[in-house]
Amino acid sequence: MSIDGNIGKVIGAIDADRLWRRHMEIARFGATGRGGVNRQTLTAEDTAARRHLLEAIRPRGFAIAADPIANIFIRRSGGDPTAPAIAAGSHLDTQPTGGNFDGIFGVLAAVEVLEAADDAGVTTRRPLEAIIWTNEEGARFAPATMGSAVFAGRLALETALDTIDSHGIAMRTALAGALAATGAPVTRKLGSPPGAYVEAHIEQGPALEAAGRRIGVVTGIQGLRQFRIDVTGEEAHAGTTPRSVRRDALASAVEMIAALRAAMIDDSDTLRFTVGRFEVSPNSPNTIAGRVMFMIDMRHPDPRLLGERGDTITQICSTHAGRCEVSVTEILNSQPVAFAPEVVALVRTAAVRQGLSVMEMVSGATHDAKFMAGMCPTAMIFVPCARGISHNESESASPADLAAGTRVLAEVLITMADR
Amino acid sequence: MSIDGNIGKVIGAIDADRLWRRHMEIARFGATGRGGVNRQTLTAEDTAARRHLLEAIRPRGFAIAADPIANIFIRRSGGDPTAPAIAAGSHLDTQPTGGNFDGIFGVLAAVEVLEAADDAGVTTRRPLEAIIWTNEEGARFAPATMGSAVFAGRLALETALDTIDSHGIAMRTALAGALAATGAPVTRKLGSPPGAYVEAHIEQGPALEAAGRRIGVVTGIQGLRQFRIDVTGEEAHAGTTPRSVRRDALASAVEMIAALRAAMIDDSDTLRFTVGRFEVSPNSPNTIAGRVMFMIDMRHPDPRLLGERGDTITQICSTHAGRCEVSVTEILNSQPVAFAPEVVALVRTAAVRQGLSVMEMVSGATHDAKFMAGMCPTAMIFVPCARGISHNESESASPADLAAGTRVLAEVLITMADR
Repeated sequence: MSIDGNIGKVIGAIDADRLWRRHMEIARFGATGRGGVNRQTLTAEDTAARRHLLEAIRPRGFAIAADPIANIFIRRSGGDPTAPAIAAGSHLDTQPTGGNFDGIFGVLAAVEVLEAADDAGVTTRRPLEAIIWTNEEGARFAPATMGSAVFAGRLALETALDTIDSHGIAMRTALAGALAATGAPVTRKLGSPPGAYVEAHIEQGPALEAAGRRIGVVTGIQGLRQFRIDVTGEEAHAGTTPRSVRRDALASAVEMIAALRAAMIDDSDTLRFTVGRFEVSPNSPNTIAGRVMFMIDMRHPDPRLLGERGDTITQICSTHAGRCEVSVTEILNSQPVAFAPEVVALVRTAAVRQGLSVMEMVSGATHDAKFMAGMCPTAMIFVPCARGISHNESESASPADLAAGTRVLAEVLITMADR
Repeated sequence: MSIDGNIGKVIGAIDADRLWRRHMEIARFGATGRGGVNRQTLTAEDTAARRHLLEAIRPRGFAIAADPIANIFIRRSGGDPTAPAIAAGSHLDTQPTGGNFDGIFGVLAAVEVLEAADDAGVTTRRPLEAIIWTNEEGARFAPATMGSAVFAGRLALETALDTIDSHGIAMRTALAGALAATGAPVTRKLGSPPGAYVEAHIEQGPALEAAGRRIGVVTGIQGLRQFRIDVTGEEAHAGTTPRSVRRDALASAVEMIAALRAAMIDDSDTLRFTVGRFEVSPNSPNTIAGRVMFMIDMRHPDPRLLGERGDTITQICSTHAGRCEVSVTEILNSQPVAFAPEVVALVRTAAVRQGLSVMEMVSGATHDAKFMAGMCPTAMIFVPCARGISHNESESASPADLAAGTRVLAEVLITMADR
């Protein structure tokens, strides 16, 4: 791993123990007692996790700023005060039954690079920045990747602030409280691009582990379409109403999903088709369901295939509606994103130079890097997670893999910061 | 309709306008504004409806008593103070999106017979009793027909009182408040059988209307089996996890239900098979479901067929579980009930004598009459409801049909009360 100058010094100062310890510290905030966390965005738990991290690095004297959607920017100055920062980051919020690495790793890896640069006593030409994005998961306030979308100008701040959670609490209210509790001054303007952005993340899929590779060189993010399907039948008594006259919304929804799943098989197992949310009304065991709402999440790297397959959904649902009515609403159509080839090449070069096995891949999950890719040269670095399991309390990654990914991140960031 | 003695006098005193007006008065308690009601058992709305009815008949001087599960007994004395009462009744509680007739009609018809006897100035040999059963619907506290089950000794009082609603409120707590607010003294002992029991009810099915008949002569209640199906998969990220490694509990549940529905088709359309409740965890659009719970409600008049078909459920679910685990729990197995032939004959005779077209039928729904049938000679009287729609805010029955059913009830009750 010998390399001259700042890069070698910073890589050498990456502290794998500190990095792991920080993960375990953050895991306490919202811990469920089953190994995972429930740390949804802007809750007391999420705010406490942010404060803990900012407090831990306070002796470093990094400049801390928030933007109006509570994204947090941690900056280590460079030699050229006018140069845009080289940034890295991710998020600390989780799913309701989330794990300890999805998002957290990208934040802690970025902070580790800043601390390692400090410990190594190097001064980069450009500033280095670690970013904590707000509400990446979208579990409490929809949509996902809200903080980076607002920062990148792809979602209006007011629209985001008007969002309501399932308890009727407005994002605007939660945000004001969280910003005040964090103590970061709101001095960062929305839409101010860094010089480049790199996000380290667990893969959240099984490919690296299955192939025995250490580093995923991420070339882009696959496309994502989400649909809301509303099925309307008629409530009736389960004991008295003959099948022939029923308008059973649950039965029709089941037929639709079975048909959709059959239609969405692809030989290469690349298409991701999921129904993860399914709501029944009145949801009583002895009343035929009058209404069902379910959501479809489908993803593919090829925009043409995603377009064609997604466009069949309305027809398939109508064909299997039986005696019910159905409406199909597309609520998200996110085109595939290709990362900047020069930054992707830096990731590959750094990993290979450090003796790590690599694998090129497209991200199946959406990340804040999607919106950053529209603002500045962007890439991502993946590390393996056990059995590919994520969005799950048993999500797991090894200290050695997290440290390896952080060293690759360090080399990429310092390379760009010294240009 | 000419008939001598008390029967003719009481039938002549049945006041169709008063009966309809009472339905419309009760409909105000828990009105949803969409034509229906949400008057779940022992809520403020349910208690207010009970108080309203007791207040309306207070000038009659009927004896009011409650039992320890808050069933209310309204008694008009007879000539023989030692004879058991001839009783009728039903319930005032509703489904969360219920209608204005299911249960209400049976209570108000019974009260109308007592008032008509009063107005006619007749004294029957035996007492007449109108009963308001607690928690027939089972929508707030499970199981359904709880009040009559406890009264008949088929469910332990303590077991019922320990039940918790979805807000964590114990039945015990709700019951104490409702009993105090109702003001009825708790002087009726559980398990004290009346001399006979007749329940008037809307059909809750389409048969009477389709055949153009006015009165359903109910010979019994079909059997009911309920099952709880728990499907366990593994939560994982919707965007990254290939289909081949998914353990998707929702996908497996859909396959099970589709297969069950195909297996439960019967040529005569007599078998009732319903999945009305379906719960997903974590129910997030971008997380593969780790757990699904759904409930099966199946009914048939023939115990052998219900036994055979119900016993295939476990095998069908296992066959379609895919990579998930499944457990099948039978939570209710209620055998078909045959009503007392002599009371059924009285219903048929009274309706025919009154010039009403009749139809023999088995009740598809379960009613409090199921448990009364184990205590004393019991039968039911059905009247049509529009399009057979029930457990629905648009449930509808005509004033003329309700009055006709009440006159049949009067003849049956007075006939037995004068024996």
